[in-house]
Amino acid sequence: MPPLITLTTDFGARDAFTGSMKGVILKINPQAQIIDIANEITPQDIWEAGYVLKSAYSHFPKGTIHVAVVDPGVGSGRRPIIVVTEGYFFVGPDNGLFSLIYQEAERIRVHHITASHYFLPNPGPTFHGRDVFAPVAGWLAKGIASGNFGDEITDYVKLNVPAPKIVENGIEGHVVHVDRFGNIITDITFKGIQQLLGEGTNLDESSVIIAGKEIKGLKKYYAESTLGTPGAIINSSGALEIFLYKQNARMNLSIKRGEAVRFTITR
Amino acid sequence: MPPLITLTTDFGARDAFTGSMKGVILKINPQAQIIDIANEITPQDIWEAGYVLKSAYSHFPKGTIHVAVVDPGVGSGRRPIIVVTEGYFFVGPDNGLFSLIYQEAERIRVHHITASHYFLPNPGPTFHGRDVFAPVAGWLAKGIASGNFGDEITDYVKLNVPAPKIVENGIEGHVVHVDRFGNIITDITFKGIQQLLGEGTNLDESSVIIAGKEIKGLKKYYAESTLGTPGAIINSSGALEIFLYKQNARMNLSIKRGEAVRFTITR
Amino acid sequence: MPPLITLTTDFGARDAFTGSMKGVILKINPQAQIIDIANEITPQDIWEAGYVLKSAYSHFPKGTIHVAVVDPGVGSGRRPIIVVTEGYFFVGPDNGLFSLIYQEAERIRVHHITASHYFLPNPGPTFHGRDVFAPVAGWLAKGIASGNFGDEITDYVKLNVPAPKIVENGIEGHVVHVDRFGNIITDITFKGIQQLLGEGTNLDESSVIIAGKEIKGLKKYYAESTLGTPGAIINSSGALEIFLYKQNARMNLSIKRGEAVRFTITR
Repeated sequence: MPPLITLTTDFGARDAFTGSMKGVILKINPQAQIIDIANEITPQDIWEAGYVLKSAYSHFPKGTIHVAVVDPGVGSGRRPIIVVTEGYFFVGPDNGLFSLIYQEAERIRVHHITASHYFLPNPGPTFHGRDVFAPVAGWLAKGIASGNFGDEITDYVKLNVPAPKIVENGIEGHVVHVDRFGNIITDITFKGIQQLLGEGTNLDESSVIIAGKEIKGLKKYYAESTLGTPGAIINSSGALEIFLYKQNARMNLSIKRGEAVRFTITR
Repeated sequence: MPPLITLTTDFGARDAFTGSMKGVILKINPQAQIIDIANEITPQDIWEAGYVLKSAYSHFPKGTIHVAVVDPGVGSGRRPIIVVTEGYFFVGPDNGLFSLIYQEAERIRVHHITASHYFLPNPGPTFHGRDVFAPVAGWLAKGIASGNFGDEITDYVKLNVPAPKIVENGIEGHVVHVDRFGNIITDITFKGIQQLLGEGTNLDESSVIIAGKEIKGLKKYYAESTLGTPGAIINSSGALEIFLYKQNARMNLSIKRGEAVRFTITR
Repeated sequence: MPPLITLTTDFGARDAFTGSMKGVILKINPQAQIIDIANEITPQDIWEAGYVLKSAYSHFPKGTIHVAVVDPGVGSGRRPIIVVTEGYFFVGPDNGLFSLIYQEAERIRVHHITASHYFLPNPGPTFHGRDVFAPVAGWLAKGIASGNFGDEITDYVKLNVPAPKIVENGIEGHVVHVDRFGNIITDITFKGIQQLLGEGTNLDESSVIIAGKEIKGLKKYYAESTLGTPGAIINSSGALEIFLYKQNARMNLSIKRGEAVRFTITR
């Protein structure tokens, strides 16, 4: 099985960014298989990249190396890092992009990448994706141990991820992502509801309040909803999601990431 | 030769959708080679996905598994299916997406996918691309026979694809696709013209009427046309196409898919 | 190591164009590994494709076959060509797309592709990416010598690439590319400055004039700049670049490719 390297970046598909990274990886490690996760991350949006990476990474075979580059601080003092969890490697900037990985993983080891002999010669100040992260991923995929790239650190950057909290008859959470279809995804999860409101909580009579609108009940699938009326659903990641069947809920509700969402039991 | 799996979806490149599918496939079948056909299909546009898939699938080696997911009915009663033709496999929702494949193939066998032990555990209601179609493709690529995934069905969904018809001195057809460049592609084909108007039909003196505009004659290549004047051509798929050299014909003519196009012989 | 073929096109990800090309390549050469460099090149923008290809190609392993298709003249008299340099192959239309490769390479050999038995049968007039360039790349990757595809030519098309020139106290150059982030990249390079203004030129006290605005000094990295104020930097390709930290400099400065940029030493 060839070593797997994935890319999650804001580099788009109209420039030489991802192509250059792929070339660098393959020059170092012609056996590597490179898979695009998502390269159209909104420019500079570290949260979006973090959410997308968190959603995808664990579906890959153990040992996969996930390279993620959304890096407004490139060339500054921000550190390049390798994150090692029980199953995966992550390579990218130490700017909080991996915060959700830290939250989820059972064991974490973070290395500050300093061994510059693994970089491209004379790395420039604006494109560490090509000059630092791609070659490090290539060498990592060749079997170089993560410890060889630099010392372990413990003060890596963790973004403050707000947690849903209990309110009267329910939970208040936040919009954490809006996907291509305009579906609004929250940090209120089925698991979280069971934990906060009790194991046997019956979701059949519930209500979601978002942007001043109330959405009554949960749907079992998108098409169950009436056209033009927002619906709520526990989606395939177990998260509460607000959608508009065959349309764009974000445009309909003018919602932004971070906004409050309230889920209440109405029984 | 590694087993080939292609993707045609409306999942874009800013979310975790295609990345998750690729991970699931590679976890089941690390030998699979995954090729993106098109992941920027207009959201929920089953017709567009069907047209794109039909245009691309037969260029792949025999045995290729084409996964196509544009799936507004996900989680509802709509069935997941495997389509087996003389040369290819298709995996996706039974919502008409494969209608043009049914039309074109000599032999068709359709299986309703019910063998849930091939799915991800606990498939959710909103992302069968990841939970059902990707794993089924992965197992199919490992050599599991299509019959093992579920019984054959004959009442699979076929969209009503309108056919061009003979009118005075010519043919009336429809716009079936508008491509990235704004080229307007119709269901009037060179082959269809020969069939409907006679084998020896001379196309040299012809005329196309679209959106109330008349375009005289056929061009032999795009650059033969005057800048700013729409031209008509029999394109590389043998279809009548209306274009605007170095510009966007759709924007110029305000055309939508489904609109009528008339092709007449003026000799 | 499998033979590598890259794609740089304006074909996007919503049509069957790149998928068809990949299928054709893999049918001819199932061993080929196909890597997307960039398929969202602005439609018909030969310059953009040329710049992107030039930025990426040399990062790939020697022997890589780079297919580039931005081809408004498809089907006309413009010739299909193979370009052979000391390390790489390039396949595409003879419309100047490879001008920057010609400029950079030490040795160049250009073949006019005429051996139509390597094409798909009956190539159409609108999609040589699928019918000509993809199959030629597939056969080239199988080891067919470039000479077998057609005779060498010397009158291949070279676009007139304007060179930066010395002006009072500095250099006048041009905008050559604007990337996804809105960063404005010029043809004034660190190397060019040393050549034109002298080896020891101190860049610490310098000034850039673009679109009537003066930008004083060079930054060492993006984040060194004040939010909302354009900065200048020698980027990772050694080129003078104008940026707006975490924002879009092109939108702020309303700049287009080709516009003049003046770099002066103010010490």
